[in-house]
Amino acid sequence: MVFSDRISGVQPSAIREIFKVLGDPSIISFAGGNPDPSTFPADKMAVIAAELFEKQPSAALQYSVTEGYPALREKIAARLKTKFNIGTENDSLLVLTGGQQGIDLTCKVLCNEDDVVICEEPSFIGALNAFRTYKTRLRGVPMDDDGMNTDALEEVLKSEPRAKLIYTIPTFQNPMGVTMSLEKRKKVYELAKKYGVVILEDNPYGELRFAGEDIPSIKSFDTDGIVVYCGSFSKILSPGMRMGFVSAPAEIAAKMTVGKQVTDVHSNIFFQMLVNRFLEEYDLDEHIAKIRVLYKEKCEAMLSCLEKHLPEGCTFTHPQGGLFIWCKLPESIDANVFSKELVKEKLAVVPGSAFLTDEKTQTSCIRLNYSMPTIEQIEKGTEILGRCIREKM
Amino acid sequence: MVFSDRISGVQPSAIREIFKVLGDPSIISFAGGNPDPSTFPADKMAVIAAELFEKQPSAALQYSVTEGYPALREKIAARLKTKFNIGTENDSLLVLTGGQQGIDLTCKVLCNEDDVVICEEPSFIGALNAFRTYKTRLRGVPMDDDGMNTDALEEVLKSEPRAKLIYTIPTFQNPMGVTMSLEKRKKVYELAKKYGVVILEDNPYGELRFAGEDIPSIKSFDTDGIVVYCGSFSKILSPGMRMGFVSAPAEIAAKMTVGKQVTDVHSNIFFQMLVNRFLEEYDLDEHIAKIRVLYKEKCEAMLSCLEKHLPEGCTFTHPQGGLFIWCKLPESIDANVFSKELVKEKLAVVPGSAFLTDEKTQTSCIRLNYSMPTIEQIEKGTEILGRCIREKM
Repeated sequence: MVFSDRISGVQPSAIREIFKVLGDPSIISFAGGNPDPSTFPADKMAVIAAELFEKQPSAALQYSVTEGYPALREKIAARLKTKFNIGTENDSLLVLTGGQQGIDLTCKVLCNEDDVVICEEPSFIGALNAFRTYKTRLRGVPMDDDGMNTDALEEVLKSEPRAKLIYTIPTFQNPMGVTMSLEKRKKVYELAKKYGVVILEDNPYGELRFAGEDIPSIKSFDTDGIVVYCGSFSKILSPGMRMGFVSAPAEIAAKMTVGKQVTDVHSNIFFQMLVNRFLEEYDLDEHIAKIRVLYKEKCEAMLSCLEKHLPEGCTFTHPQGGLFIWCKLPESIDANVFSKELVKEKLAVVPGSAFLTDEKTQTSCIRLNYSMPTIEQIEKGTEILGRCIREKM
Repeated sequence: MVFSDRISGVQPSAIREIFKVLGDPSIISFAGGNPDPSTFPADKMAVIAAELFEKQPSAALQYSVTEGYPALREKIAARLKTKFNIGTENDSLLVLTGGQQGIDLTCKVLCNEDDVVICEEPSFIGALNAFRTYKTRLRGVPMDDDGMNTDALEEVLKSEPRAKLIYTIPTFQNPMGVTMSLEKRKKVYELAKKYGVVILEDNPYGELRFAGEDIPSIKSFDTDGIVVYCGSFSKILSPGMRMGFVSAPAEIAAKMTVGKQVTDVHSNIFFQMLVNRFLEEYDLDEHIAKIRVLYKEKCEAMLSCLEKHLPEGCTFTHPQGGLFIWCKLPESIDANVFSKELVKEKLAVVPGSAFLTDEKTQTSCIRLNYSMPTIEQIEKGTEILGRCIREKM
């Protein structure tokens, strides 16, 4: 069978074989990106679901509009505006099938083949692969401790007349866990404006802050209609329901609606109505506050265990929120090889190469997740990690 | 804003303005394609949902695998095999976000820009628009009373070396309501094999037969691994949950999985588990039998009303299942203009041009839906239709 060029260009990820072993309960996983299931408000959702089936079964089970359930669109837009100053009268809010769909549709409506998508290096693999299926060219910008290096960003913008999109996760970045400074956010916005490119601001983790102060989103500066802001309920309510959203300039949102119509018609309407009712009946911020306490505890546990178990020559980021820590091992260690060896020692991590624009690049970095493992697993897993690193030195 | 060529090529459909008026309750709509909401098994679904929230909340709300919930995949595959002889050991079953996603992903993994997708003329607008977003070229094959004209199909295959895909809805076709004969199904399969193209067999309505005998699906002949079979729970359980599936040759399914991963990661897992449990606990065939009785009654009502109210010079199809009747008005009537006039008379229908590869082609055909309107609305709407046709003659 001859497949399309677009799909042939995306290889099954190297990390798939690591994820395959995760069914084995004897393996401690720092590899995933799943929220802790204890944070799912299942009891509250059950009550709402029962109500929906009883009182609005026809609406909750019938076809619906592509843009999303109107009441939910309004509520999300109002929350974004009130809490984060996101969205103007020129923006439109769409409910999507997970944040991933926001990434996919933004590229779909903006980029032709061979257009350039500029991304942080390293970045979220799901986004990089989405961009690859549109046969765009990926250009990575190195990361500093306070987000992407904006000098390097400008160099890329200067050298790439076909640059169309800057993809960034400014807050608690995946995989690094670092947060872009306000100064850099402003600089990225100015550069996008100067060079006529659109910013795709992906913010799935922003509400999971457990230390430091909130920093305004890039979208909150967007008076020029050049930022697509992508959000999600996956980390604050449930990922399995696949509920995300974008706040985007209306003309972009209109094209995204056309693009969405032909891929899944609309997102699951039952869960759109369920989330809408949740926002009506319960205090989402109160719910999020509890998640923050839990992840703060887990993150601090992992950081102090890393401090304790990792030998000199290892460094790691100190996130103020989100799900991930980025760990740099001694340069002599090839993270690809090492992560396979770790599996034999019953620990799963993701090698850093998975997050690079060129996955074949060698790196000594690994991504560690602290939201899924228990405190006990964090202690045991970091001990294994430390021991295995020492054996390689 | 400069948008991608792929999205600029898809115009907001001409029928959007007709659909816009459907919020007006004084308008009788034969325009939609929605199932009758009285067919949704909401009570049974409510019981299952309550169980899921109580007993498996973590699994039902957490991230899941792209291919679909394993137990559901097995059940659908087993049902297809037992009832319809669909699927071999070389096929793989994927659960998707509605049948629409099966159409989208098939084109995504198989077609490059400028490849040719051959479709029935007229055909389902959602599929045509999906193919357009991949910048494929559409070639329509005229329809006979027993499905696409296979001589014309072979002519197209001969003349188009870049033909990659034949898209067909063999059973109760949308928009025509006609069913392809067994002989033609075999011929289409042979031609696809001979010319090295893949068949995308879309079968969202096949289970809604209320007259005549079942005809084997094209996929049931597929010993060569060249048919992607696309099905859906939208018309037999609920469309709002967005649950569809494909049975496809394993290598195609593997590529579709890569394509799906980057668009929505996986389909709503809660509803995958709900449908799985429904298939375990309840008799789907018994449920479908009730839907058939209802649609038989509505279709017969519409046919007899058309017989009664439409003047000579009008013809219409006599479907043995599905949701639609295709009505040919006197040649002098431009269905585009006429359908707008009908709205003023409080009746909505879809003009035939919406279903053509070139939407600008003039036609005197309209599509009528009988699943949504009540018997009373069918009587009143057809009376309006007949009166308005006579006024144009």
